[in-house]
Amino acid sequence: MKIGKVINNVWATRKDEALVGQKFMIVQLMDNNREFKGSIIVAADYIGAGIGETVLITQGSSSRHMRGLEYSPVDAIIVGIIDEEKES
Amino acid sequence: MKIGKVINNVWATRKDEALVGQKFMIVQLMDNNREFKGSIIVAADYIGAGIGETVLITQGSSSRHMRGLEYSPVDAIIVGIIDEEKES
Amino acid sequence: MKIGKVINNVWATRKDEALVGQKFMIVQLMDNNREFKGSIIVAADYIGAGIGETVLITQGSSSRHMRGLEYSPVDAIIVGIIDEEKES
Amino acid sequence: MKIGKVINNVWATRKDEALVGQKFMIVQLMDNNREFKGSIIVAADYIGAGIGETVLITQGSSSRHMRGLEYSPVDAIIVGIIDEEKES
Amino acid sequence: MKIGKVINNVWATRKDEALVGQKFMIVQLMDNNREFKGSIIVAADYIGAGIGETVLITQGSSSRHMRGLEYSPVDAIIVGIIDEEKES
Repeated sequence: MKIGKVINNVWATRKDEALVGQKFMIVQLMDNNREFKGSIIVAADYIGAGIGETVLITQGSSSRHMRGLEYSPVDAIIVGIIDEEKES
Repeated sequence: MKIGKVINNVWATRKDEALVGQKFMIVQLMDNNREFKGSIIVAADYIGAGIGETVLITQGSSSRHMRGLEYSPVDAIIVGIIDEEKES
Repeated sequence: MKIGKVINNVWATRKDEALVGQKFMIVQLMDNNREFKGSIIVAADYIGAGIGETVLITQGSSSRHMRGLEYSPVDAIIVGIIDEEKES
Repeated sequence: MKIGKVINNVWATRKDEALVGQKFMIVQLMDNNREFKGSIIVAADYIGAGIGETVLITQGSSSRHMRGLEYSPVDAIIVGIIDEEKES
Repeated sequence: MKIGKVINNVWATRKDEALVGQKFMIVQLMDNNREFKGSIIVAADYIGAGIGETVLITQGSSSRHMRGLEYSPVDAIIVGIIDEEKES
C-alpha cells in the first residue's frame, strides 16, 4: 500500500458506465524523503476521505477486492485514513 | 488511476487480432509537479477522447474489466474525460 | 520481491472492514545503491516483523495469496525476515 | 501499453520449459521526452517484429491474454508494430 | 521481462510457510544505459542460476504461472539464463 495526501476531488462527466456514482479523489503520494511530493494518482473513495487527509491507498487488481468493485475498471482505492497522532 | 493529456492517435497495421478495430491514443501522464511531462503510454479508448483532452486512465488487469476486453491483451484504457472547470 | 527496512507501525482507525485486525508496517525499500533510501510503502505483516528489521516484501496480486487474504484489498505483505549474518 | 524500439534478439538456452520455442526481443521503451532512452525490457514476440522497428508492448497479466500464453510465465509481449508514417 | 545480474543468495529463516524450501537470489536489474545499476530485487530461482550470471526475470502475477507456484506469495522469478555470446 502507499501513503498519500488528498489534494482535491476530481469530476469526469463523460466516463465509463461502471464508474457512475463513484467518488474520485486526486492524491499525491509520499516520496522517498517522506514528503508528499511523489506521484499524482486518482483513487476511488468509499471511506469518506476529505481534502488534506493522509490516506492509505491500495493499487492494482487488489483494489477491485472491495465491495462490488470486482468488475469495475478501477486500479486504485483509498482503503483507510491514517491516524495523525501515531504516524511517525 | 492516472491523469494524462491525449497527444495523438496511434496506428498499428500489423497487430494482434484481438486488437483489430480498437482505437488507441498516445497519452502523456501528469508528473509530480502536476505538469503533463510524465510517462508516455498508449491507451485503448472507448469513451471517445480527442487530442488535447485531459483523461483518466486505468492500467493493469483492471483495464480488462470493461465491455468485451476480458481476453484482450490491453493493459491501459481511457475510462473518463476530466471536467476542465472543476479540476484544480 | 523487494528488500526493505521496517520504519514504524501505522494505524488507521477509519478503514475498510476487510482490514480490521491486521497489522500494518511502514517499510522503506532498498535503492539501486543498496541503501534503504528507496520507495516508502505500507505492508501487511503476518510474520511478526519489528521496527528496524530487514524484510522481504511481496507486492501486487501475489500478496493476496496468503492465508485468508484472497478477498482483502491488500497489495503488499511482509513474507519473510532476512537473516542478517548472510545478507551481503 | 508502451512504445518501444526493438534493439536485438535475446537467447536463453537454459530456461523454463514453458518458454521453449518462443522468440524474445530486447526493447528499449520511449522516455518522457519521446526518445527511446527509457527502460530496457524483454518481450515475447508473436507478431514478427524486426530489429529497429517501433513496437507496441503490453505488460503484466494482460500479456498472458494471447493465444496459448495463459499458463506461461511471460509478463511482456509485442502486440503490434506501429505504422511509421502516421506516428507523431 | 527484465534482464538482471545475480548478486547473491538471500536467506530468511523466519518466513511464510509457502516459501519454505525455495531458493531466493538478489538480482540487480539492467538500467536505461544497459548497465546492471538498476533496481535491486529478490527472485525465486528454479532454473539454477549462479552468482554473476545474467538472468531473465518475470514479475507480477505471471511469476506464479510456474510449476506449483499458483498459491505462493511470490512476485518475481528467474525464468532463464541469458546466453553470453549472443547478448548485445
